Amino acid sequence: MIFIGIDLGGTMIAAGAIDLKGNILAEASTATIAQRDYREIVRDMAACALKALERSGRGMDEVEALGIGIPGIADNTTGRVIFCTNLGWHEIPLREELQKYISKPVFIDNDATVAGLAESVAGVSAGAASSVFLTLGTGVGGGIVINGKPWTGAHGVASELGHLTMEMDGLPCTCGKRGCVEQYCSATALIRMGREAVSMHPDSLILQRAGKPEKISGKIIIDCAKEGDPLAAKVFDRYTDYLALAINSIVSFMDPEVIVLGGGISMAGQFLLDAVNEKMPRYLMFKTMPYGRVELAVLGNGAGIIGAAMLGMILKEDKSL
Amino acid sequence: MIFIGIDLGGTMIAAGAIDLKGNILAEASTATIAQRDYREIVRDMAACALKALERSGRGMDEVEALGIGIPGIADNTTGRVIFCTNLGWHEIPLREELQKYISKPVFIDNDATVAGLAESVAGVSAGAASSVFLTLGTGVGGGIVINGKPWTGAHGVASELGHLTMEMDGLPCTCGKRGCVEQYCSATALIRMGREAVSMHPDSLILQRAGKPEKISGKIIIDCAKEGDPLAAKVFDRYTDYLALAINSIVSFMDPEVIVLGGGISMAGQFLLDAVNEKMPRYLMFKTMPYGRVELAVLGNGAGIIGAAMLGMILKEDKSL
Repeated sequence: MIFIGIDLGGTMIAAGAIDLKGNILAEASTATIAQRDYREIVRDMAACALKALERSGRGMDEVEALGIGIPGIADNTTGRVIFCTNLGWHEIPLREELQKYISKPVFIDNDATVAGLAESVAGVSAGAASSVFLTLGTGVGGGIVINGKPWTGAHGVASELGHLTMEMDGLPCTCGKRGCVEQYCSATALIRMGREAVSMHPDSLILQRAGKPEKISGKIIIDCAKEGDPLAAKVFDRYTDYLALAINSIVSFMDPEVIVLGGGISMAGQFLLDAVNEKMPRYLMFKTMPYGRVELAVLGNGAGIIGAAMLGMILKEDKSL
Repeated sequence: MIFIGIDLGGTMIAAGAIDLKGNILAEASTATIAQRDYREIVRDMAACALKALERSGRGMDEVEALGIGIPGIADNTTGRVIFCTNLGWHEIPLREELQKYISKPVFIDNDATVAGLAESVAGVSAGAASSVFLTLGTGVGGGIVINGKPWTGAHGVASELGHLTMEMDGLPCTCGKRGCVEQYCSATALIRMGREAVSMHPDSLILQRAGKPEKISGKIIIDCAKEGDPLAAKVFDRYTDYLALAINSIVSFMDPEVIVLGGGISMAGQFLLDAVNEKMPRYLMFKTMPYGRVELAVLGNGAGIIGAAMLGMILKEDKSL
């Protein structure tokens, strides 16, 4: 018995044949070419899935279900994608279209939810009764797992942790609101802070490394901070202040057993974790307040296909969700 | 089969004998006198429970379990109160102490959680798979119910919705943080806004009604706003802006089927609900985004004892929580 997981991104489509324990048996990928008609994209998703299956040496009769992680919001009841900015999708019958090529049960969820599920099955939060996954990338995504199952809310719009309001009348967000977590905790936010800082301190190591402000990346800022550059350290300190505050709101809301940090920024590793763990106690409601451990994601890019496959595994068993 | 619910407040202790459907069979209450030793308070809680039972005409052999709602944080595993500001309690063995008087299973949870549970069993959110209860009183409390069970997190510190950060470096909060929801959405916050407003506009109807700034209450502000006083309307408009924003963050995090507004401010009734419902769409991530309905609590003060009793009913059945 195996599952196929498909990770639909704005740039790439990846698919994998995954076993019951979340091991990747084989993979395949292709470019998304987002501007195409959705039917063409879905056709390539199916082709990718079939190629991964072929490479795994398993047969279609061994496939129990397919899971798909999308960079947007889906309704698992109808199998439709409600909204997906990167792809310009709105009310797309993804399940129906995919089943034209592969006649198996299909489950769809948000990519951060799927990555969080992967970590909770085969990664750092395995065994935890509850976890919250936070992707710190171009944007900020969230994935909630409760009692081993993804929580996506009554209408599939839950766990949009990048769009909690953190600053009223704060920086305008791509979602149309202001002061969203995403504007302070994404890699994009860190880069913006870095650029602002070098504009006033052009002698910084950050600018030396980057060459010009437009070339400043999250990695450059973090590397410079690790090396002790005072300006980079200051920018990173401000960024991790925001991040600790956002994690604190997650604790106050849901108090999960584990908070998992993923996405590009999490590549900063222990350096990031140390900074967050040092700051967390500042924001507790009382000194001795217990709270979940903060961890780094361990599955990397594989989380997308593993989690999507696990979605198939878990939701196929439990129709109650 | 009946349950006893105890609502432990900073001012009053209330107890009730409650049937399986959440009906109050009989009640009793007494003053808390918070500055006493906890043992004396617990003795009075037991006396109250016994009096309510006596008044109900039922026998102790019919009582399945006791539930207690406290204005703080409890650990249901140990039966201890972790933290309770109003009573100055810290690590109090409440279950053990109460069982000296009544030898039945005892379950303890936060008062807002308990009130939310009451509404989800016998009130406005009955039948909903998920709900979030928001008490808008002196502070702001939260109660989360998922699949009919209270969600209090991995360490019992979840659903502290009054302490999500809404404004970084915002107004100082009693919890030690800054910019918490409580500082913008509580009755205390509305009163503060009203006082600030009349200090610049002493000719307002608000001040006429109150006599002096210290006498301004949430009710006076809301009544004046209902009557069309421009200053009161402006204050109420600002308050409901904050509230809609906080509810929006609840939707983005958990997407519950119902959001229930309780506490003193909810007495504003339809006037409050209309204002919130008008503002909610402004903060959606996309225009057609589906989200849960916002409702007013219907059980009033009874929610405390009903929910506490329901805690006994639900947790006694389900030891997994």
